Amino acid sequence: MSDLLNKLQWRYATKKMDPNKSVPQDKVDKILEAARLTPTSSGLQPFEIICITNSEIRNKIKEAANNQSQITEGSHLLVFAAWDTYTADRINYMFDLTNSERGFTNEGWEGYRHHLLTTYLNRDKLTNFEHAARQAYLALSSALIAAAFEEVDSTPMEGFHPPAVDAILDLNSKGLKSVALMSIGYRESGQDWLENLKKVRKPLDKFVTVID
Amino acid sequence: MSDLLNKLQWRYATKKMDPNKSVPQDKVDKILEAARLTPTSSGLQPFEIICITNSEIRNKIKEAANNQSQITEGSHLLVFAAWDTYTADRINYMFDLTNSERGFTNEGWEGYRHHLLTTYLNRDKLTNFEHAARQAYLALSSALIAAAFEEVDSTPMEGFHPPAVDAILDLNSKGLKSVALMSIGYRESGQDWLENLKKVRKPLDKFVTVID
Repeated sequence: MSDLLNKLQWRYATKKMDPNKSVPQDKVDKILEAARLTPTSSGLQPFEIICITNSEIRNKIKEAANNQSQITEGSHLLVFAAWDTYTADRINYMFDLTNSERGFTNEGWEGYRHHLLTTYLNRDKLTNFEHAARQAYLALSSALIAAAFEEVDSTPMEGFHPPAVDAILDLNSKGLKSVALMSIGYRESGQDWLENLKKVRKPLDKFVTVID
Repeated sequence: MSDLLNKLQWRYATKKMDPNKSVPQDKVDKILEAARLTPTSSGLQPFEIICITNSEIRNKIKEAANNQSQITEGSHLLVFAAWDTYTADRINYMFDLTNSERGFTNEGWEGYRHHLLTTYLNRDKLTNFEHAARQAYLALSSALIAAAFEEVDSTPMEGFHPPAVDAILDLNSKGLKSVALMSIGYRESGQDWLENLKKVRKPLDKFVTVID
């Protein structure tokens, strides 16, 4: 476990990556798998990841993201894109998949499906999207941790114009909206102003309130 | 790393915890530390955690959370509470802390502080709250992973009435709003219907799109 804390201490939002180093496929696969295994509300996994190495596309995204250099200097850019809303098809897909994988149906589970269909489909789209976006952030956190376990550097980024990225990737047609970017690669040691600065976090007493 | 994937496979949303088993303090501390070290947007950590063992308070929260039994059968309940909005005080606190911890000020960093003060304080409260809530979910994911590394069972929960939980914990007066619960404890083996069911996730080709 101190293993996990060590990894969280090791990682930082890398500002300068070496454009000549590429993350091996097996490490990319493990990072994506950690995202895939991340728990989400009702198990719906209401988001997708677009994994981009294509230079032309990444250059376009960089222009929509304040020209943050990691987007093209890393070897892979992960775009976390949340469902724009919940639909009956999307909810039913996951419940049907679960029934199929587990090999049985269950009255309680079917009742829960009905409950979600009733409540989610009657909520406004923005509430549903925000709910889906939160779940995407669970996976973003897992992916950042997974990268650290692979000794791969990463940068989570929100500083981009989502509608522009959605247009570049044609996400609207898939009912998706970009919510976060994550570049992975390797730091260009000695060239990154943040590399050796102290990691700063709120002290525990400003962060946790104990009620015994 | 397969270590991390193993932990993600091991964990599940525990439905029945053993009320006679308590998570040792050193493990609780590591789970909270993982949450504290979690990266957040601009490093603002716009949320807090309330760590509750008190039975009376947990019973009240359980009533506001569809009587989910893990809330009282686990030994600790973590309430993730996001800032209701960004304020100048909150932003300045983190920038001042960073300057103090790193021992210097920097023009670029001060410019960034000014940028956040300008943009966040001019956004509506709901947008700010939703942004803060997403950051809290990053920490929730880290905490769930940390629990798994400690072989502690956990249950993330959204099925509660946030205004009721906010009232029980007097979160409004602190400018906080509850966004997620996480119970930690130990599964009551043989009594938990979910314990031995297959973990189901979308297949990779429905989850990741590759653009090479």
